[in-house]
Amino acid sequence: MADNRAQKLHTVHFEPDNINIDVEPGANLMETAVAAGVHINASCGGAGVCGTCNVLIKKGRVESTRTDKVSVKDYQKGVRQSCQSRVVSNLVVEIPLESRLEKVVLDKEQTEIVTQMPAVLAAGWQFNPPARKLYLELPPPTLEDNASDLSRLLRGLRQQYCLENISVDFEVVIGLAKVLRSAGWRVTATILSDGDSGIRLINVEPGDTMARSYSLAFDIGTTAVRGQLLDLNRGRVLAQAVDYNRQISYGADVISRIAWAQKSGGLRRLKRAVVDTINDLVADLSRQAGVAPDEIAHVVVAANTVMVQLLLGLDPRYLRLSPYVPAASALPLIPASSVGIKLAKHAQLFAMPSVASYVGGDIVAGILGSGIYQRETVTLYIDIGTNGEIVIGNSDWMMTAACSAGPTFEGGGVKHGMIATTGAIEGFEIDPATLEPRLTTIGDARPRGICGSGLINIAAALLKAGVIGQNGKLNTDLASKRIRKGADGYEYLLARADETEIGKDIVITEIDINNLIRSKAAMYAGCQTLVKSVGSKCGIVEQVIIAGTFGSKINIENAIGIGLLPDLPRDKFVFIGNGSLLGARLTSFSRDLLSDSQRVAAMMTNVELSESASFMENYVAALFLPHTNAGEFPSVRLG
Amino acid sequence: MADNRAQKLHTVHFEPDNINIDVEPGANLMETAVAAGVHINASCGGAGVCGTCNVLIKKGRVESTRTDKVSVKDYQKGVRQSCQSRVVSNLVVEIPLESRLEKVVLDKEQTEIVTQMPAVLAAGWQFNPPARKLYLELPPPTLEDNASDLSRLLRGLRQQYCLENISVDFEVVIGLAKVLRSAGWRVTATILSDGDSGIRLINVEPGDTMARSYSLAFDIGTTAVRGQLLDLNRGRVLAQAVDYNRQISYGADVISRIAWAQKSGGLRRLKRAVVDTINDLVADLSRQAGVAPDEIAHVVVAANTVMVQLLLGLDPRYLRLSPYVPAASALPLIPASSVGIKLAKHAQLFAMPSVASYVGGDIVAGILGSGIYQRETVTLYIDIGTNGEIVIGNSDWMMTAACSAGPTFEGGGVKHGMIATTGAIEGFEIDPATLEPRLTTIGDARPRGICGSGLINIAAALLKAGVIGQNGKLNTDLASKRIRKGADGYEYLLARADETEIGKDIVITEIDINNLIRSKAAMYAGCQTLVKSVGSKCGIVEQVIIAGTFGSKINIENAIGIGLLPDLPRDKFVFIGNGSLLGARLTSFSRDLLSDSQRVAAMMTNVELSESASFMENYVAALFLPHTNAGEFPSVRLG
Repeated sequence: MADNRAQKLHTVHFEPDNINIDVEPGANLMETAVAAGVHINASCGGAGVCGTCNVLIKKGRVESTRTDKVSVKDYQKGVRQSCQSRVVSNLVVEIPLESRLEKVVLDKEQTEIVTQMPAVLAAGWQFNPPARKLYLELPPPTLEDNASDLSRLLRGLRQQYCLENISVDFEVVIGLAKVLRSAGWRVTATILSDGDSGIRLINVEPGDTMARSYSLAFDIGTTAVRGQLLDLNRGRVLAQAVDYNRQISYGADVISRIAWAQKSGGLRRLKRAVVDTINDLVADLSRQAGVAPDEIAHVVVAANTVMVQLLLGLDPRYLRLSPYVPAASALPLIPASSVGIKLAKHAQLFAMPSVASYVGGDIVAGILGSGIYQRETVTLYIDIGTNGEIVIGNSDWMMTAACSAGPTFEGGGVKHGMIATTGAIEGFEIDPATLEPRLTTIGDARPRGICGSGLINIAAALLKAGVIGQNGKLNTDLASKRIRKGADGYEYLLARADETEIGKDIVITEIDINNLIRSKAAMYAGCQTLVKSVGSKCGIVEQVIIAGTFGSKINIENAIGIGLLPDLPRDKFVFIGNGSLLGARLTSFSRDLLSDSQRVAAMMTNVELSESASFMENYVAALFLPHTNAGEFPSVRLG
Repeated sequence: MADNRAQKLHTVHFEPDNINIDVEPGANLMETAVAAGVHINASCGGAGVCGTCNVLIKKGRVESTRTDKVSVKDYQKGVRQSCQSRVVSNLVVEIPLESRLEKVVLDKEQTEIVTQMPAVLAAGWQFNPPARKLYLELPPPTLEDNASDLSRLLRGLRQQYCLENISVDFEVVIGLAKVLRSAGWRVTATILSDGDSGIRLINVEPGDTMARSYSLAFDIGTTAVRGQLLDLNRGRVLAQAVDYNRQISYGADVISRIAWAQKSGGLRRLKRAVVDTINDLVADLSRQAGVAPDEIAHVVVAANTVMVQLLLGLDPRYLRLSPYVPAASALPLIPASSVGIKLAKHAQLFAMPSVASYVGGDIVAGILGSGIYQRETVTLYIDIGTNGEIVIGNSDWMMTAACSAGPTFEGGGVKHGMIATTGAIEGFEIDPATLEPRLTTIGDARPRGICGSGLINIAAALLKAGVIGQNGKLNTDLASKRIRKGADGYEYLLARADETEIGKDIVITEIDINNLIRSKAAMYAGCQTLVKSVGSKCGIVEQVIIAGTFGSKINIENAIGIGLLPDLPRDKFVFIGNGSLLGARLTSFSRDLLSDSQRVAAMMTNVELSESASFMENYVAALFLPHTNAGEFPSVRLG
């Protein structure tokens, strides 16, 4: 019988990962790759319009229709859009360089996080983790004292730790009699404080295990998921790991994900994809730290609202429709196992509270971790990305806005755009005389494309050298073979085919620059609108915190040069790195900060930019390099 | 494939119920009957020693060994002990009258409960059910007010009902977006108060359903389960139902059940048996009242500690072993569906708190419902049964004890004993001259045996007439053919074979009377020990409440006559009927009483009789009719 079934399935072999998977005939090839844990780019979420998920069929046959995303020549070679292909035989599939997501950069980042100390940090909190283990030596019952097992345990917590009014999870009662007796009445209780409300008894285990008390902090991003395993006794990061969010194959941005969730079974698949990602990270972290998953009692998740809702299986459709309403800003604790995370039954998941549909728990975590809400210093907090998030304020007030900058900063909407991985052009200089470029790439590899920070650096240099004008148009009067007309209009040649890894010329087009201008305009106009909403000007800003993994790679001078960041004294800028993960970690370390998280979310006033007339004005005014109003950028001098 | 499997199974047909069931070859016949929902007596829990589960194999073959519980003659006719038989072919099985449990009496009781108003009742409580439905008309979200769905809902509860600090079940969040929008922002929230602690939001449903708010109250007894469906708007009982606890086939008393639970899979089966019983009752109650199970949000269960632990799947072994420790005296709320009860996911089960291993939530419910804890009147509360429970006290103090009276009052350990069902001899008078009896039976049927209250009446009358002496021995000097020597020693003939339904002489033996004496001695000594434990005598008792379905059938005069109840003025005795169900119902009607329940359980001091030297003395002194110390029973005059 097993044989019969096996004969009906097709085996798909992915190269260069060398991963096999058996699937039903007719399975979608992109989803097959997702199921196998093979990362394929799919910016558009499988709609067939972006052409980033192309693969090469080396053996076997798929059913597929050729679109204009695959040239006739490539089609004849066996190139197919994986999202548009169905498996109809055993296959050998190669994921070409352009379609692959590599872990090299993420792995590099991993070591970076460890050594990096944030320049700004929440202060004044005590190290008192919400999840605590408490060792108890209970007197065995006698005829004079035959209180119930649970009463005895609660009495022990009262007498030995002064804890009253503890609510009890029924799961604890189920195994209690056995645990107490097998352990000779010496047990370790795990309790969990839920912010300002009560204390819950979530687990009892034999013996003294107080020394082994752990939690997890996660930053669940649209592109990548970052996790840390924390020691709740010493307040230390024991291990960290990062991987692409497997949802990436269902679209690069939250809008595609929301659209995918509307398909039949879509929500379930997106949930599965991120849960699988988390489970792989949990296994990795456990292994690294030598901690069993059963020893982890608490999981703190910082994520944008869409990611939270997808993780919990909450339909995200209303996040996208005006008036943009999330399911819940503050969520109750949820058993991690009920979400599908492979931890002990008693482990509880806490999602950082959110402010609005596009201002999520990730940004609240960042504000919490950076301590902006504790200081009088008026601070501008910017997390640049597809969904840019901006906060301005101090301990008295806080305004926030999300601006849809588009995927430009992550390589989307750019002819040779790519995410910041091996071979992405990052550094760029130009010889003012010859107009010849000098490139540096991530991993010092042969160039494969341009990442977001590279794009900023290229645009700033081209602008300064006069290769592009303030309107973003190429100066075709210049005498350089690098400036030429291509298939998509005017372009600047960054690298010739024979210099690249992909065997094609890598160029930056006027369209690319135009997209960048729109993205940076959105971010800048967002900052401006937010500052103006409190009746002020950018001058009131005393500190600028640049958050996010992407943000930490930005060259401030170049970002100001193209008008992405406000023209403030450079010493006001600080990088905080992954503020979301920082906030999640600190929340796992401190009940004080856990309580603060609700307060921070509540004190943030959201400004809905997409509905703001003033934002539209600011946006249009910012569609220029660096800005139509030169007075906004006094320090920027063009060549 | 399905056919192959069917051929391997044997079909067992039970008469007179006309129920078929297919079982694997080798299945135990008694368990087959349980699985089919056919009630068979099995006092000893399938150990093969009581002989109450005999059945007649009319067709087919079982594997069985003959014990002395089946005569050679009966064995040849096809009579087998069902607990000792394995199914090895298709069968037609008849459950003989003696082995059957009939619902007639229970059904009669059902109408009785409705009309009966307790003579004593808790006072001063408000009608404010812990489970409440609250209708909300919420403003739809706008760009100016796009708080999350959950925030909007909680704001509505705060503004419209002044409710703050509500904790939220994650299940509510899952469906919330859809419910709110499909219902045009007009919804009904169900909240649940958990005693003194907080309020939980457990459900949100479309539209205004406030008028349909229901709960269930259950008294889960060792023998029978009684349930009521309650209207939480009007505080009324809409329906009630009763059935034998299906666990009855695993033994008549809690000790046999605990023993059964130690077998492999035993705990699971016992749990299943009582859950099946409850589910049948829920279906019946729903049908009667025209209430969908989904409309029920709260279940209050009053049960002894063993029944509670079996229902929840908590190993009861330590209840039986010194020092008699229950798993928990106060249990958290548990989703009814997680126990297996077929109600909506949000319905929560509350088990009345218990005092000790043998003083359970049933007795706490009785004390609560009768209001003893509210009055200065010193009250003795007695629930007579296999597990007799006694409480003495008032609003200042309360002592309690459980005494193992044995199964005599439920027909166990009595040659022709039976539970109080059709054909059980209940009324008994004797002609002082001829010593001829006058019997009345339940249902006015031909006699089948003697129930507990009948046994008391018979013993009292025989004692008064001098047929038995104060030591319980038959006076063989009397000239009556009814007094004779039988297979088990001396006996009194109650009914000749030709007068009975079972075609055999029904007698009461000296052994039966001896068992009764031991049972009544245990109850009386329990009362005495409890009264003495507070340094007093029975004279301090100002009121005696007789609780329990069995208790309500007792003739007080006769019960005092044999020394079961203390010799107090008759007008001090009141019947409360099913005090446990009363207490469960009132708890479902009032948060005040829900809070009180914890307080009542905590103020009751348990006296462990089985470990008390003074109890043993009192017990030995009570092994006489009515008592060795005649001064204890001044009003009892023997003929």
